[in-house]
Amino acid sequence: MAQAVRLARRGHYTTMPNPRVGCVLVKADRVVGEGFHAWAGEPHAEIHALRAAGEAARGATAYVTLEPCSHQGRTGPCAVALATAGVARVVVAMQDPNPQVAGQGIARLREAGIPVQVGVLEAEARTLNPGFVMRMARGRPFVRMKMAMSLDGRTAMRSGESQWITGPLARREVQRLRAGSCAILTGVESIIFDNARLTVRPDQLELPDAEAIGVRQPLRVVVDSRLRLPLAAACLREPGRTLVATLEDHDAERRARLEEAGAEVVGVPAAPDGRVDLSALLHHLAMREQANEVLLETGATLAGAMLAAGLVDEMQLFVAPTLLGGEARSLFELPGLTRMDQQKPVEILDIRAVGRDWRITARPR
Amino acid sequence: MAQAVRLARRGHYTTMPNPRVGCVLVKADRVVGEGFHAWAGEPHAEIHALRAAGEAARGATAYVTLEPCSHQGRTGPCAVALATAGVARVVVAMQDPNPQVAGQGIARLREAGIPVQVGVLEAEARTLNPGFVMRMARGRPFVRMKMAMSLDGRTAMRSGESQWITGPLARREVQRLRAGSCAILTGVESIIFDNARLTVRPDQLELPDAEAIGVRQPLRVVVDSRLRLPLAAACLREPGRTLVATLEDHDAERRARLEEAGAEVVGVPAAPDGRVDLSALLHHLAMREQANEVLLETGATLAGAMLAAGLVDEMQLFVAPTLLGGEARSLFELPGLTRMDQQKPVEILDIRAVGRDWRITARPR
Repeated sequence: MAQAVRLARRGHYTTMPNPRVGCVLVKADRVVGEGFHAWAGEPHAEIHALRAAGEAARGATAYVTLEPCSHQGRTGPCAVALATAGVARVVVAMQDPNPQVAGQGIARLREAGIPVQVGVLEAEARTLNPGFVMRMARGRPFVRMKMAMSLDGRTAMRSGESQWITGPLARREVQRLRAGSCAILTGVESIIFDNARLTVRPDQLELPDAEAIGVRQPLRVVVDSRLRLPLAAACLREPGRTLVATLEDHDAERRARLEEAGAEVVGVPAAPDGRVDLSALLHHLAMREQANEVLLETGATLAGAMLAAGLVDEMQLFVAPTLLGGEARSLFELPGLTRMDQQKPVEILDIRAVGRDWRITARPR
Repeated sequence: MAQAVRLARRGHYTTMPNPRVGCVLVKADRVVGEGFHAWAGEPHAEIHALRAAGEAARGATAYVTLEPCSHQGRTGPCAVALATAGVARVVVAMQDPNPQVAGQGIARLREAGIPVQVGVLEAEARTLNPGFVMRMARGRPFVRMKMAMSLDGRTAMRSGESQWITGPLARREVQRLRAGSCAILTGVESIIFDNARLTVRPDQLELPDAEAIGVRQPLRVVVDSRLRLPLAAACLREPGRTLVATLEDHDAERRARLEEAGAEVVGVPAAPDGRVDLSALLHHLAMREQANEVLLETGATLAGAMLAAGLVDEMQLFVAPTLLGGEARSLFELPGLTRMDQQKPVEILDIRAVGRDWRITARPR
């Protein structure tokens, strides 16, 4: 199963919106076939492994990181394929996270007389697909917040100048975070101030299959309650889609002009503060855009609002060995936080050097 | 010599204002005596080692982390003692850092016909005494800045509330930093807001010889240009001395009342901004108070001023896994820092976990 997990990781940048899945077929202590899901529309991991094994699949044990599907998708139900190939036993790391279909693939296998064991390396299998699991189980994407900051917790000078706080290795890591995401979420102010393109640049990924990965550009999502996105914004001229999330009640003429400039505009319900309801937006991204993992790359206001709303699942903080001082821009605006007992505790999962910078992985508690 | 360095460290909390020094006597590949300097007024490391070796010192090689003294101090010149004991050879890690006496101890030994080798593990020996070396070589103490901060670079709520950002293990480390310092430097605002005592609490050191260490309280130094220190300040009622550093031109009546309340007051020249000249203050602490290592524990204004003046040699940042938001207090005020090319780069030397917090050691570049 550990090998199946490793195989699944090879689809890290490319399976979206499908989950990353690996499969290993073992007979008489020998691997007779293995595979992983690489691209949506292409065969699932089990099919690749069965093809590799050929006749040797008969009597083998299949290790799969995710419950084999039972539905008639583009490649047919994998549960049926495994049974047809004569697999003797199936070991599954985790059930399908969609509560409405969970267990159906396992049931199909058992109906075919194949013993199925569930739960082996389940934690590892879950970390392969934090976004897919959350989308299926809770109807929203997994939100990973990325911030580049100085050692004193500042993201830019007061003027907005910020290029570059972190070094090239940290920026490469950010490119990889983008490439592994279904969507990149930002606020309109970030576009106004930085004219950020929010694209994956294959030459900066430093991955062997960078060109293939870069073919898919993550959906760019701009939170823009008052449709202030400049028509000349660089992100509107890049490959891939730019979705402007605004209020349901918005200026139709401005919308038309933005659409003409290349944006897609979607109306989202308003939150009590009159701005775009972030939770509703995430629900939209999960349901309509099949967004598994969303990378939040934005300034202190939207970052703080997402944190305050409990909508951040993971934080990736790139800390540069520099000081910008108390007049520089804050990491997070958390309005109303005035007493120590209101502080927002986080759990630090990892700290590691990335070139001259440091990368802190944390999650809100 | 590595053993001599280890021995020297045993005087870490107690030798002030003297340097930490270790000595090992070796004869025929066997240690025949060793010692370290423990308390000012007590014998130097060489004397302890010679006493331990007795007659075996004759013909031995002495390894000493610092050039043996040549002056008639409270324990007599060690260079003479080594020669008298018949030591055959002396290996010295580093010369005396005082340029006016450097080499005299070595010269005395060589005059006595004893070969002397200098420079073995010199870097390690220097790190034993960053403050003593700086005081001797440059006439100012080594300044170590300690800050407790949230992950978003904040030290307190806007109200000043800050207890506690960091956990008990980090606070123990701060106690140890205090205990290893000759003086603790703070701004009067820190006293006004926190009523900090700035003392070493032996029960919090968690060291075997905590009681003995706690007998010496570091000098408390309050930068207070306008003599605003409250007469009721807790630090004035603690064991040890509190030095109020104010301008030369100050209110004599207020001074008298502070002195009555237990403070010592010293007038320091004014800087161009009309406040206490920090460089002059450090010079005073080195020359008049024999301060080797000074721990800077203060707020964003004085911390920023010290940084901007290039007077911080090391930073100890205790980072708690929590967020306090953009309205909370900054780590450093660095007025005038408005462009990225003015940023203050630092070098991160170490990051390690301290309980649930993280300790970052850095130095300004």
